[in-house]
Amino acid sequence: MSLSASSLWSPISGGITAPHGFKASGVRAGFKISDKPDLALLLAPQGSICAGTFTQSLMRASCIDLAIERLRVTNGQIRAVLVNSGHANACTGPRGLLDSLHATKQIASCLGLLPDEVLICSTGLIGAPIPMRKLLDAIEPLASSLSDEGGSAAAQAILTTDLVVKEIALQAEFGGRKVRIGGMAKGSGMIHPNMATMLGYFTCDVGVASDLWQGMIKRVVERSFNVISIDGDTSTNDACLAFNAGDHLENEYLNSLEIGLNIAAQYLAKAIARDGEGAYCLLEVKVVGTQSDVEANQLARSIVGSSLVKTAVHGCDPNWGRIVAAAGRSGVTFNPDNLSIWLGPYQLMKGGQSIEFDHSKVSTYMKKAHQGNYLSTDCVCIRLLVGSGPGAGKAWGCDLSDEYVRINADYTT
Amino acid sequence: MSLSASSLWSPISGGITAPHGFKASGVRAGFKISDKPDLALLLAPQGSICAGTFTQSLMRASCIDLAIERLRVTNGQIRAVLVNSGHANACTGPRGLLDSLHATKQIASCLGLLPDEVLICSTGLIGAPIPMRKLLDAIEPLASSLSDEGGSAAAQAILTTDLVVKEIALQAEFGGRKVRIGGMAKGSGMIHPNMATMLGYFTCDVGVASDLWQGMIKRVVERSFNVISIDGDTSTNDACLAFNAGDHLENEYLNSLEIGLNIAAQYLAKAIARDGEGAYCLLEVKVVGTQSDVEANQLARSIVGSSLVKTAVHGCDPNWGRIVAAAGRSGVTFNPDNLSIWLGPYQLMKGGQSIEFDHSKVSTYMKKAHQGNYLSTDCVCIRLLVGSGPGAGKAWGCDLSDEYVRINADYTT
Repeated sequence: MSLSASSLWSPISGGITAPHGFKASGVRAGFKISDKPDLALLLAPQGSICAGTFTQSLMRASCIDLAIERLRVTNGQIRAVLVNSGHANACTGPRGLLDSLHATKQIASCLGLLPDEVLICSTGLIGAPIPMRKLLDAIEPLASSLSDEGGSAAAQAILTTDLVVKEIALQAEFGGRKVRIGGMAKGSGMIHPNMATMLGYFTCDVGVASDLWQGMIKRVVERSFNVISIDGDTSTNDACLAFNAGDHLENEYLNSLEIGLNIAAQYLAKAIARDGEGAYCLLEVKVVGTQSDVEANQLARSIVGSSLVKTAVHGCDPNWGRIVAAAGRSGVTFNPDNLSIWLGPYQLMKGGQSIEFDHSKVSTYMKKAHQGNYLSTDCVCIRLLVGSGPGAGKAWGCDLSDEYVRINADYTT
Repeated sequence: MSLSASSLWSPISGGITAPHGFKASGVRAGFKISDKPDLALLLAPQGSICAGTFTQSLMRASCIDLAIERLRVTNGQIRAVLVNSGHANACTGPRGLLDSLHATKQIASCLGLLPDEVLICSTGLIGAPIPMRKLLDAIEPLASSLSDEGGSAAAQAILTTDLVVKEIALQAEFGGRKVRIGGMAKGSGMIHPNMATMLGYFTCDVGVASDLWQGMIKRVVERSFNVISIDGDTSTNDACLAFNAGDHLENEYLNSLEIGLNIAAQYLAKAIARDGEGAYCLLEVKVVGTQSDVEANQLARSIVGSSLVKTAVHGCDPNWGRIVAAAGRSGVTFNPDNLSIWLGPYQLMKGGQSIEFDHSKVSTYMKKAHQGNYLSTDCVCIRLLVGSGPGAGKAWGCDLSDEYVRINADYTT
């Protein structure tokens, strides 16, 4: 998946450890039956500031409560985050919280930090407590393998059913000063605004004051991770954490920094959608002409989340009637006589009525997106014009395939 | 699917023509490639009163607008309804409305009625206009085959991707007077509250004043068709029409009549859910302990509509974590520490925490529901207790299978 064009920011290698001073590692603790790494650690330099956004679900894991509490008591001065993959440690009662406390205390002790400076994020099966013996045994090798080249190892270790590693790093120069942003994320089921079974991490090697940083990250997440939907389900454990550390950036460059964060977050969000469970292609829905951006986003989400639209996209079938149905039930008011729909470059509907189009050409356009690999930029793009209002919005998702059903019909067994 | 127990009402045969004075017919107009009937007609006796409920989608077919308008101008004195299956005639512009006007005019002329006394309901592919030549050619044979034993022929002719005919008739005796209720419906994709790609028809051979009848049907639909969800999508063409005709029923029996209508409508709603596209079983979610019934219904719908819950049900996998996730994102506030969950007779969660249960026994319980036929009463029942509030609610749906994807990846092609 290539990056959006930006004259400011250039892609570099290194993921979350590309920014100066950040270290990461990933090891195999043995949580999973496979031989893949499943425990990651990120260490931020002294003086770092962390901002977080978390699942809106009522049923949230205790690690989320712990993260929110520690961000509060430290005023964002978090130094490390541990990520275990395979066991969500949600709905595990007091034991779940005690395990999180224990794990972070051990990490703190190992790294010479205070327990309050360490967070833990868990992803995997809900109701499954963390196998603590395995975790505790892995802490020493995990800490000792921390490295400023460990970004990719960490990005690999946080995955569950994801097929590909999702990481990015960008670099820009502001007033002669090099600034780097790193990011990594995981999907890939139970993904829906707000957030997802989604973990996202960002690092940045310039300092930004805590309140400014929190506001910036909130806006960035709103335009990226909160725009994707794989299957309409939201997880108990979603979290996005963003660290900055270094001399403070001059105010005049804050907007440029936010542009870079947007590029990185949207890249990762689209990569999550493209790698949705069982997905063959990335689906993008763009809506313009509503009264507000909020309405446009709501309309786009209704379409990107429709099982009937998603199966039609899977079948490379330009069945615009399903797009119309999903738009009609979105709760957004518009004049049906003004509705126009495009699929890629092909217009399928104009002024509320179907128009002639070459079915096979549109189907070929859709097939092309299916042939992309997991990092392809190709997508099936649905565009709607619903009126002359100033609102614009978008949503990203994926097709719904037989494989989605098969993956999810047998996950715990 | 057996009927709910009622000492008042007994099942009888005859479907919508079981009530005295109603005639129906179904013929093959040739709209579909298959050799199945695809055009139905229902004729109500003189003096009948009709009430209707319709799709809430903004993108509704012109036949829906026409029905609402004619119910208004005749004050519910509708005599006949024509149903064509295969072409939804939605998003077909002025031509769509002209075709509906033409078709109902021909029916009216054939039956000696006023055009305003005739409605048309269309179901099938959105954007596809009605092949009018075929429809007009079929009107004479359709009208001439009207019969007081034609209920099943009509119930067959309204189907699209449904696998089984859905009809019911009930009889009771009030003060020595026999009262009959008939019903028929079709599903089976794009089904979600409110309404569905759902057509439902009821007949009754006692008179009820128009305003009382409208209120009664609204409540009945709210507790039946508005409780089901197949895939979260709502159609452009949903309609439920209910006719009564005959000497007025004494007020003291109105509640008993409504009980009968509830039984009939809930039977048909569950039959639609059971026969959802690609479905192997009926899924019932019951919620108690919320602050209100509205909250309980909202929670139940969130769970019954979750793709991850539906695939777990398909896989006979008691993955309660997905139930928890769907409950957590429902928008209903409850104390997670009070959440208890049962799957059939087996408790999986108590006070917000997982408890020990025999995985294979629960899986066997779920498998049993899969083995039912399309008219089986077996269902996978998920029950939630979320607190001590007075609210109770439910939702019906079905599992999500590979077949759903296959059916819908290739519908228009």
